[in-house]
Amino acid sequence: MAVTRRTSRDIRSESRLDVLHALLLAGEASRGDLVGVTGLSNATVATVVSDLIEGGLVIEARRTGGRVGRPTTSLRLNGNRGRIVGVDVAETYIRATVFDAALDELASAEVAADEHDDDADYVVDRIVSALDAAIGQAGVARADVLGVGISLPGGMAGWGGVSAVVPDATWPHVDRLRERIDLPIVIDNPLKAIATAELWFGEGRRHASMITINLGTGVGAGIVLEGTILRGATNFAGEWGHSLLALDGRQCRCGRKGCVEAYVGASGIQQTLAGIAPAHPLAAETTQREFIGALAAALEPPSPDPAVSETMDLTARYLGSAIADLVAIVNPEMITLTGWTAWALGGHLVPAVRRRVIEESPGDAAAGLAIEVSTVRGNSVATGIATIALERFLSDVGLVTTRLPTAL
Amino acid sequence: MAVTRRTSRDIRSESRLDVLHALLLAGEASRGDLVGVTGLSNATVATVVSDLIEGGLVIEARRTGGRVGRPTTSLRLNGNRGRIVGVDVAETYIRATVFDAALDELASAEVAADEHDDDADYVVDRIVSALDAAIGQAGVARADVLGVGISLPGGMAGWGGVSAVVPDATWPHVDRLRERIDLPIVIDNPLKAIATAELWFGEGRRHASMITINLGTGVGAGIVLEGTILRGATNFAGEWGHSLLALDGRQCRCGRKGCVEAYVGASGIQQTLAGIAPAHPLAAETTQREFIGALAAALEPPSPDPAVSETMDLTARYLGSAIADLVAIVNPEMITLTGWTAWALGGHLVPAVRRRVIEESPGDAAAGLAIEVSTVRGNSVATGIATIALERFLSDVGLVTTRLPTAL
Repeated sequence: MAVTRRTSRDIRSESRLDVLHALLLAGEASRGDLVGVTGLSNATVATVVSDLIEGGLVIEARRTGGRVGRPTTSLRLNGNRGRIVGVDVAETYIRATVFDAALDELASAEVAADEHDDDADYVVDRIVSALDAAIGQAGVARADVLGVGISLPGGMAGWGGVSAVVPDATWPHVDRLRERIDLPIVIDNPLKAIATAELWFGEGRRHASMITINLGTGVGAGIVLEGTILRGATNFAGEWGHSLLALDGRQCRCGRKGCVEAYVGASGIQQTLAGIAPAHPLAAETTQREFIGALAAALEPPSPDPAVSETMDLTARYLGSAIADLVAIVNPEMITLTGWTAWALGGHLVPAVRRRVIEESPGDAAAGLAIEVSTVRGNSVATGIATIALERFLSDVGLVTTRLPTAL
Repeated sequence: MAVTRRTSRDIRSESRLDVLHALLLAGEASRGDLVGVTGLSNATVATVVSDLIEGGLVIEARRTGGRVGRPTTSLRLNGNRGRIVGVDVAETYIRATVFDAALDELASAEVAADEHDDDADYVVDRIVSALDAAIGQAGVARADVLGVGISLPGGMAGWGGVSAVVPDATWPHVDRLRERIDLPIVIDNPLKAIATAELWFGEGRRHASMITINLGTGVGAGIVLEGTILRGATNFAGEWGHSLLALDGRQCRCGRKGCVEAYVGASGIQQTLAGIAPAHPLAAETTQREFIGALAAALEPPSPDPAVSETMDLTARYLGSAIADLVAIVNPEMITLTGWTAWALGGHLVPAVRRRVIEESPGDAAAGLAIEVSTVRGNSVATGIATIALERFLSDVGLVTTRLPTAL
């Protein structure tokens, strides 16, 4: 695939996304505010707002009379333009969340999934159940749903031997999903979803380059360059969790040995603890989320558990070394940590990780690097995949030219 | 630094670069040929050609009468527009190469450098000597030199504690260089130079994403995404040679342990051989280039040296694993190998490296990945850094908007 040529249509598309992002963050804003926030000209903002009003995405909210001069009109996103659903298919649960068109959450429903049952019919059934439950709970008519985004983890991409998340390929079970759901759907992987959430709701657009790192059962990176998510040739970009920390090291569930995930994924952290204190009661905890929660609790003063402290030190060392590799290869301005492990342990890990990254990065490449726990909370996978579905809708109605994967 | 906003001026700039690249590769072309090759419209090509003729970069070469219809005009780059010099500052030599404005090589001069003497005065003196010798040899008036590009390896970036290659920083010895050279100069690192060479003379513009891997004393990657070199926040992007292959592994000359370079750099390969056959005569070879050349010779039929074959197997395994990490993180469409180690050993390494990359990359991410020895030969660092100096000149005269590092 040759280099993509950019056109003036792409520039218009970017201006529209800039205005949508600004309204999403501000809630309400005047045209003048939008000029200030986006850096676009008065004329461009006027045209863009007019396009978005015509498309029903933005409404004029109210007129406010200033003390002097003519009254200004306040703008906001039109939540009632329709509904968007984001479905987070995880190893142990499937959660569907209904949003309005302003990306405010309306309702959410979760069904349990068995990590060991990856039969396609089973997963399709559960996706449909979660979706129907969430739509029912929100009291939304199906006709009002503009799109459904489905996040499928990398591990499920191989069902039937075909990758689900490749832009130009099709998941072999997509036809079944499409038949059962009968609404416009997009499928992507969770790394692209969290990167999208960071881009619309977090730090993504404030930096020319940023990486958001997901820490949970799986580990991965959403890489955002100049406001665009790096997908790579086949949508695998960001699978840093399956890059090497240690040649011939720990066995990873992906089949490779020595992957970053085998050290800093939840079960990798548990393996580190078991190496330090084999008889430690937490080494036998069978639920990953409870294990991570208990680690955080065991670190609380006045008497933090020494084996757990040592586990944190070693985990920070592993994570810092692996992040230094991202600095060596991509050299971003900012790194955010997200996912339930990051929320539980981020406060303990971040200072030691920062020191290690500075030591291990080439030259002074990490001297100005910000490393923070992400400000995007809640289910950032569901929010991100719903945002991708919204982008796809915007593309369908001709407002943006964003190139999306598997738009079905 | 926030996301860079793209303008219609950038689009014009890209169209001009497209036409320049097409003329560089074709030698001569009509406006109609350029439409075919670039995919630009007739009107855009006409405008761009007129701008480039006005700027003296392109000339109408000759009229050819077709059998039917009106004669067409052939266009070519105007080599006589001026001269460009590329200086490759390497660990063991400094080579200056003079090019005409069509990037055809005119003359070249090399001075030896002592790897162990990194005193700034010493290096500045040698850069000036090489430059003067090359300009003299080419019989070029200094007034005709449009620009000088200087490639400084990462290891030298730390002189005086300040990075030389950071776009917004200054090398502490730049003032001295500028005084002594008294011509427009740009400084960049060799990874960005080889990526530029791949972009103008190789595979760079045929793929939406590609990585050029440099194998020599040092090891690194030039990453090209959508026709643009990934620089990162502080120009360190691509320092993959200093990402981890093995946590706590071999000592690297950068100070870190277990870097990719410590395994697949020339002296890393020698260390592998010494591990396999400590008494092997090549394990004691003191010149890196001769060591690599002798390895290639020892692999020739009818009786390839078994210890050298084993060294190649292990090197292919290390290199394949490290490239699989680039696939996991960046997922490019194509990878080219360049540098004197790649030219000497590429034929032996590439098939085994390809197999290893496919095995070790996540999912089927590497299934369609092309891995080849680069088609850009000769001193691609000198060619690339001269091209960066030419881009800087084009930017100075307002023809392109490419953002360059340390333009002085």
